[in-house]
Amino acid sequence: MTGGYQNKILRVDLTNRKITEESLNEELVHDYIGGRGFGVKLLYDELKPGTDPLGEDNEMIFTAGPLAGTNAQSFSRYKVFFKSPATGGYFKTSSGGNWGAELKFAGLDMIIVKGIADKPVFLWVNDGKYEIRDAEYLWGLDCDDTHTLIREELGDNNVKISCIGPSGERGVKYAGIFSDRRACGRGGGGAVMGGKNLKAIAIRGRGKVELADKEAYAAAVKEQVAGYQANPQFSTFSQNGTWIAEAINALGMYPTKNFREGIVPEWENLESSEYLKLQVRKTRCYSCMVHCGSIAKIASGRYAGSWTEGPEYETIWAFSGPVRHSDIGLTIAADKLCDDLGLDTISTGSSIGFAYELYEKGIITKADTDGLELTYGNSEPVLEMIRKIAYREGIGDVLAEGTREAGRRIGKGAEDCGIQVKGLELPAYDPRGAKAHGLNLLTTNIGADHNSGYAPQEVFGVPIPWEVDRFAPEGKGKLTKWNQDSTAFLETGILCSFMPSMGMLAEDVYGRLLLGATGIKDFEDPAYLWKIGEKIVNLERMFNVREGFSRKDDTFPKRLKEESVPEGPSAGSVFEEDQMLDEYYTERGWDIKTGIPTKEKLEELDLGFAIK
Amino acid sequence: MTGGYQNKILRVDLTNRKITEESLNEELVHDYIGGRGFGVKLLYDELKPGTDPLGEDNEMIFTAGPLAGTNAQSFSRYKVFFKSPATGGYFKTSSGGNWGAELKFAGLDMIIVKGIADKPVFLWVNDGKYEIRDAEYLWGLDCDDTHTLIREELGDNNVKISCIGPSGERGVKYAGIFSDRRACGRGGGGAVMGGKNLKAIAIRGRGKVELADKEAYAAAVKEQVAGYQANPQFSTFSQNGTWIAEAINALGMYPTKNFREGIVPEWENLESSEYLKLQVRKTRCYSCMVHCGSIAKIASGRYAGSWTEGPEYETIWAFSGPVRHSDIGLTIAADKLCDDLGLDTISTGSSIGFAYELYEKGIITKADTDGLELTYGNSEPVLEMIRKIAYREGIGDVLAEGTREAGRRIGKGAEDCGIQVKGLELPAYDPRGAKAHGLNLLTTNIGADHNSGYAPQEVFGVPIPWEVDRFAPEGKGKLTKWNQDSTAFLETGILCSFMPSMGMLAEDVYGRLLLGATGIKDFEDPAYLWKIGEKIVNLERMFNVREGFSRKDDTFPKRLKEESVPEGPSAGSVFEEDQMLDEYYTERGWDIKTGIPTKEKLEELDLGFAIK
Repeated sequence: MTGGYQNKILRVDLTNRKITEESLNEELVHDYIGGRGFGVKLLYDELKPGTDPLGEDNEMIFTAGPLAGTNAQSFSRYKVFFKSPATGGYFKTSSGGNWGAELKFAGLDMIIVKGIADKPVFLWVNDGKYEIRDAEYLWGLDCDDTHTLIREELGDNNVKISCIGPSGERGVKYAGIFSDRRACGRGGGGAVMGGKNLKAIAIRGRGKVELADKEAYAAAVKEQVAGYQANPQFSTFSQNGTWIAEAINALGMYPTKNFREGIVPEWENLESSEYLKLQVRKTRCYSCMVHCGSIAKIASGRYAGSWTEGPEYETIWAFSGPVRHSDIGLTIAADKLCDDLGLDTISTGSSIGFAYELYEKGIITKADTDGLELTYGNSEPVLEMIRKIAYREGIGDVLAEGTREAGRRIGKGAEDCGIQVKGLELPAYDPRGAKAHGLNLLTTNIGADHNSGYAPQEVFGVPIPWEVDRFAPEGKGKLTKWNQDSTAFLETGILCSFMPSMGMLAEDVYGRLLLGATGIKDFEDPAYLWKIGEKIVNLERMFNVREGFSRKDDTFPKRLKEESVPEGPSAGSVFEEDQMLDEYYTERGWDIKTGIPTKEKLEELDLGFAIK
Repeated sequence: MTGGYQNKILRVDLTNRKITEESLNEELVHDYIGGRGFGVKLLYDELKPGTDPLGEDNEMIFTAGPLAGTNAQSFSRYKVFFKSPATGGYFKTSSGGNWGAELKFAGLDMIIVKGIADKPVFLWVNDGKYEIRDAEYLWGLDCDDTHTLIREELGDNNVKISCIGPSGERGVKYAGIFSDRRACGRGGGGAVMGGKNLKAIAIRGRGKVELADKEAYAAAVKEQVAGYQANPQFSTFSQNGTWIAEAINALGMYPTKNFREGIVPEWENLESSEYLKLQVRKTRCYSCMVHCGSIAKIASGRYAGSWTEGPEYETIWAFSGPVRHSDIGLTIAADKLCDDLGLDTISTGSSIGFAYELYEKGIITKADTDGLELTYGNSEPVLEMIRKIAYREGIGDVLAEGTREAGRRIGKGAEDCGIQVKGLELPAYDPRGAKAHGLNLLTTNIGADHNSGYAPQEVFGVPIPWEVDRFAPEGKGKLTKWNQDSTAFLETGILCSFMPSMGMLAEDVYGRLLLGATGIKDFEDPAYLWKIGEKIVNLERMFNVREGFSRKDDTFPKRLKEESVPEGPSAGSVFEEDQMLDEYYTERGWDIKTGIPTKEKLEELDLGFAIK
């Protein structure tokens, strides 16, 4: 095997408590590069259709890319793949921090976990030695305490840990996987881990990542660094990270009152300049010069003394728009609470906003909420609602199912109030105000995920000059395909999704990095990369097709298609779902009627094995 | 300089942000050995009488002993010395864990801090490099989060940290200093640190401790280890640590209802066997084979999910006896909350119990407690009371002053309800049920501290066979002097106080360890060690005499002298204070009338410089 990879997969069978090492397959490497490529191929090959997401046969694939653990910038993220209990389909989720690099240092490219342990355990990966250890004593602990106690047990505070909180143990459908407060948040990976009785994976590695051509690699890294420095977005993003609430409110597409308004009152409280005042320290991921993270602390008011790492834009929104108020303190306190309890902030905030709408409509009442008054503008119940969801107490039990399933169970019109696609709640962009954003949320194979094909062209005019009218349905098929495919090949790396969004990494530099690391010639060819990107998206789709997904699942709740944004800069707009899907499927070479890749497309992408 | 010591003191002047290194004085080493010896000598020499405990001129001396960081067992504790805001006198407090060893690895024997920083800072000691760093962003954070964020800032999770929580920042008179949940708890060291705007001292060291005679040292360590293993207490103490609530209740000396009863109802809930059920992991200090610590977690009931390291016996008592109930869950939750907020559990529990008595007597009412019902047997308000004390909210503000000062301020008879000596609240032994215990609490120079001369002979029949009737006032002067002096010389080491209490270390082994480490012949001589022990106690007393202390300060509240224990195995007993003090002073060679060491005694102990 060449550089970049460690040439080792760890397979863990929790049912039989068996751990085996396995070499990387060279064909897999060539045909899928790594990261998201490996994830979808292995999940497609190894999971039978109809696998229970919380059952023994579901797998969790933890992986870091071929550039992780090197000095390339923003490439040391890790991804986790599994069949999602939220969507019932293929899922990928990822996180920055240090866990991904540590996986490589421990000599591994991937850890694949299946089975269910007979009692709570954690996996200890110690530089070539592996152990399934007791975690009964950790069960019930929050993520922060879990980190602390595992480090103490192992006698090494520098161990890197990914773990779940109480919400994952209880199968909350949007429980995430947390590593030092950074989250693989979406899709219920925490619930899958909890279902396996796997509290955490702790890693310590002292190895390094070999490179095929050190000099070429160094030159490519130098080029990448120079590119970052020359980019006009670099310093702003470095300082503010994702604090873009003002921009999205200014466009009138800040989802408010469960997507019934597009501007939240007093949004000025949530401006980047306000968060900057609370920023007490910058934070960073392994080998990333951007340092976009922050520790923020609030000094006064109801939430005085609260602090968090972040909050990111999505979280700022999740605890403001959905309940229609703008308390910066709450965004800080709620973010930390979600991190501690192991919850995805987007789906948590969205589920709470969903409950506020049901309360307004009388579908649920105080009798259902243990007396909490879920009235818009009243943010007081939010922290308690978060706790209820994490512990599945009272109304939290049904909300823990996600808004699609909760709507079904509650009925009486609640079915229409879950703002989700494929069971995954929408993030902080109203699709009616940015149609390429919307089309991505609509068609991404994991549900309404902004990171799979973020359309910065509509909001920031990057990464490439692309003539774009954010309200026009036309032309968005092509743009969405471009965004999704480029994201897909950059996620083989695994590059942080902020960098392409900011136009901070061109495909040619990526190609040179891959070539320098691995020595595999094809990886330097942009055409090859684009093909891999498209191939990944198509194979993801075929995973879902096998599970029964089709065009019917690429659909927004009717609110976004039939009701227009009532006022502000996005007023009057609705989402033209059918028209845009037709165009998108056509661009993709998929069957327009079913939204399924054609035989020809699959063959073109060397995915003949996926043809039914 | 010889082995054991690093021959380096770090002096930190926070006012002028000046850091200087200084060598150890060889005479100081010979005449005081280390630890408690160094602390009292330097504090005596460097503090002017009348120094404001919270002012610029008070010093904090952090030290580890000559055996810390070696493989000798139970010797890696650290001690902190300062003039106490609780007592107004000399204070010493100590903690296990890993900070003490790390101080040595960083090449230091001591850190002496004076002055006040103009804004919150922490001290970063990095293997010979020193830095005063900003801590504004840490101000307000609890101890656990402070550890996490400092480690992240420094990019090294193995940094060892001693810090204060919100209570120390607010000058709570019994705020402690915390390192990974282990506390220098008593006497308000946290308030002194807070007054200096010093949030933490972080240390990373990669050096080692040299030994004068490696072979002799190894032989002594072997002897020590064999002694531990042969000791009948070893396995019990290893398993249960300090869980002795059943023993103390069985003696009828478990202080209940603010020392008005001697047995707490349903004490069976607090038996060691019950805590053993909650024990999820053992914990340990650096180089200690005893592993007496535990992580305990509670699975059900009101406090389900709560966990803590510990609780130690004193804490078990502090959140049961004082409020007269026996909820094991509360002891767990309250211990962790005190660790997080930075509070000494003994004085916190005692202060809450004091408030319960005032409430019963109508001296305070619901109007003073923000509606909390402080009725005996109602444990619900306890966690909220802890928070109120830490943040000085409502009634917590006056309770934060300690029961002596709070009694003075509240008046109306509250003066008699503070169960303390010299301003330090009594621990979990009723002096009327164990008179040598009591005499130690009465006469110790830092106030009612059990660790300065614990009398295990009365409770456990160790460490030496000593014919003892626990109720008899006679003969306790001699026993107390023996316990206090031996503790004092073993705390030059700095040995964990549990070991001598369990009879687990004889003076001759200690002497051989000191000789092997330092090569200083006198240290092997038991007579020399006994002299050092007595010298320390006398110099501590002279520090206090200079501050105006005398026999009048060696006094219990009248409850313990005039009211007898109402029922149970200690029923009918009162504490014969005057008789026992007379005997004690006589044994000590102190003036019986004033409780002040005589000129002759001071000269005999080479303390001529302390004669007025």
